[in-house]
Amino acid sequence: MTHHPHTIDSRRVYATMVLSDDEDEHIYAKYLRSPCNPSGTIALAMRQRQYGQEENNSMLTFSSRVAEAIDAKNSLLCVGLDPDIQRIPAHLRAHPDAVYRFCHDIIAATHDLVAAFKPNIAFFEALGAGGVEVLARVMALSPSTLWILDAKRGDIGNTAAAYATAAFDYLKADAITLNPYLGGDSLEPFLSRAERGSFLLCRTSNPGSTDLQELVLADGRPLYMAVAQLAQQQWNSNSNVGLVVGATQPAALIDVRATCPDLPILLPGVGAQGGDLATAVNAGVDRHGRGLLVNVSRSVLYAANDHSFADAARAEALRTRDAINAARQA
Amino acid sequence: MTHHPHTIDSRRVYATMVLSDDEDEHIYAKYLRSPCNPSGTIALAMRQRQYGQEENNSMLTFSSRVAEAIDAKNSLLCVGLDPDIQRIPAHLRAHPDAVYRFCHDIIAATHDLVAAFKPNIAFFEALGAGGVEVLARVMALSPSTLWILDAKRGDIGNTAAAYATAAFDYLKADAITLNPYLGGDSLEPFLSRAERGSFLLCRTSNPGSTDLQELVLADGRPLYMAVAQLAQQQWNSNSNVGLVVGATQPAALIDVRATCPDLPILLPGVGAQGGDLATAVNAGVDRHGRGLLVNVSRSVLYAANDHSFADAARAEALRTRDAINAARQA
Repeated sequence: MTHHPHTIDSRRVYATMVLSDDEDEHIYAKYLRSPCNPSGTIALAMRQRQYGQEENNSMLTFSSRVAEAIDAKNSLLCVGLDPDIQRIPAHLRAHPDAVYRFCHDIIAATHDLVAAFKPNIAFFEALGAGGVEVLARVMALSPSTLWILDAKRGDIGNTAAAYATAAFDYLKADAITLNPYLGGDSLEPFLSRAERGSFLLCRTSNPGSTDLQELVLADGRPLYMAVAQLAQQQWNSNSNVGLVVGATQPAALIDVRATCPDLPILLPGVGAQGGDLATAVNAGVDRHGRGLLVNVSRSVLYAANDHSFADAARAEALRTRDAINAARQA
Repeated sequence: MTHHPHTIDSRRVYATMVLSDDEDEHIYAKYLRSPCNPSGTIALAMRQRQYGQEENNSMLTFSSRVAEAIDAKNSLLCVGLDPDIQRIPAHLRAHPDAVYRFCHDIIAATHDLVAAFKPNIAFFEALGAGGVEVLARVMALSPSTLWILDAKRGDIGNTAAAYATAAFDYLKADAITLNPYLGGDSLEPFLSRAERGSFLLCRTSNPGSTDLQELVLADGRPLYMAVAQLAQQQWNSNSNVGLVVGATQPAALIDVRATCPDLPILLPGVGAQGGDLATAVNAGVDRHGRGLLVNVSRSVLYAANDHSFADAARAEALRTRDAINAARQA
């Protein structure tokens, strides 16, 4: 093991991680040539963000960090990391660190194409003891992307503070998804962290979302629009609130974007869930053609289930990124 | 280490756990005399529920298990385990397994007084690597109580299934708290487990709960009553749905109980949050004077912050249990 620490920019310090000697080595080397790593022989850089005491002195709001990440990659793509042990390639499944290795290879194959990764903590918790530690190691990879922890948390006062500690201080997430049903005080421990983002569930992409989210209020709004308006008018004083709006509901997306012109929107529901990509991208981007992170998970992760899975994931990510960019330039 | 496996009843297998030799030994011995443990020298029994393939062949619904737990202890008390490392006694804080030891001592001191324990997973996740494993060891204690995992989860299809695996199969929770904002399909992987319970957030006890939960719908109902009616009419086909209704809102509690006469209600907000106990108990019990679990957390956990903390916790739990029983018999 050798380590080559580099300083890439003023906010982040990278240290390198050395390859294991096994059959998948070529995958890493293939995609990792970069100005800092011209030989392409070093695996993914470890991420050591300098989040800490200086965090709240930074002038960089989360919404500007989203814009920066999108512009740096010219990509609205977000890859959701939902590693289902039943679906990862058989040759990895027997490995004692199978989920980490699967995520590592997906990240190595796609990180230059994406603005963000979005690991869903449920799939790591389901591993039992050590699962969250696997997630922490995964989230230490790829310093050049945003990391959105998909946790859909929502709890009161001191408990919300504990979740914020877990997400922002232990896992060092750049952003988290939150469930707004408990109201503003449940969001406060997250929203008070100005450089970190909170994507609030607004109109989700699943069939059951109509049960509550589309209930019509006395003033004629559907419930999800009340969430959008609270986000816009009351909860965004630190410019770090975003919304989750599913691609399967383009009309909802149009209404939310009209009410919240500048809020970042996280858009699930394209790919395996079947929402139309071009329609959703046009409805979801802000006036600058960004402000939107288009999440795909299964269509990339499980593009192939043999030794070619990382190549197939890259091909699918590339195809999706380009389709998104074609739609936003149309 | 010696192990003495016993068979206590047909559904559960206990194995014993041996005391560590340290200054707190007397605490365990004091409260653990029982028919199975007449000397009181054995610490808390380990819980090895026989949940597994036979689970769905059982005729025991979750609502009947709540009634059974309440009757067995003649108690509606639920103690919430929210172990804040900043608030646990100083003499435990330096211990490498401080949170486990704190929870163990609270459980040992109170388990004969309570129908349920309710650990909040956030406080364990906040410990970082190994935190969930600490929770698993805590939840393996006290086989005679229900274990409600306070996680307030809510996610879609395959992710909800992963959370159900983590809660019910890894942590072996008897019940979980869920956030209903994503609708029926997000609840299904939990509700399909007939012997396990799901307490849905309905009207919570925090100030911000009014932001969404009290929004008035076009038909005149507040949003939380829509949750109560969906729970009663659509989601309870396995008799395993309960609701979370805060003690700080007695009027809401009366309305929910009227709409849902048989659903178990989990009632936070007495104790440190200040809701009136007798009023809430009378509003919340079902026609049989049960169907209600009254949660207290901080008032019991932090009744004292020195070596007497377990004694003080027991005294506070006893006082609360008796006050609840006085109210339900009045």
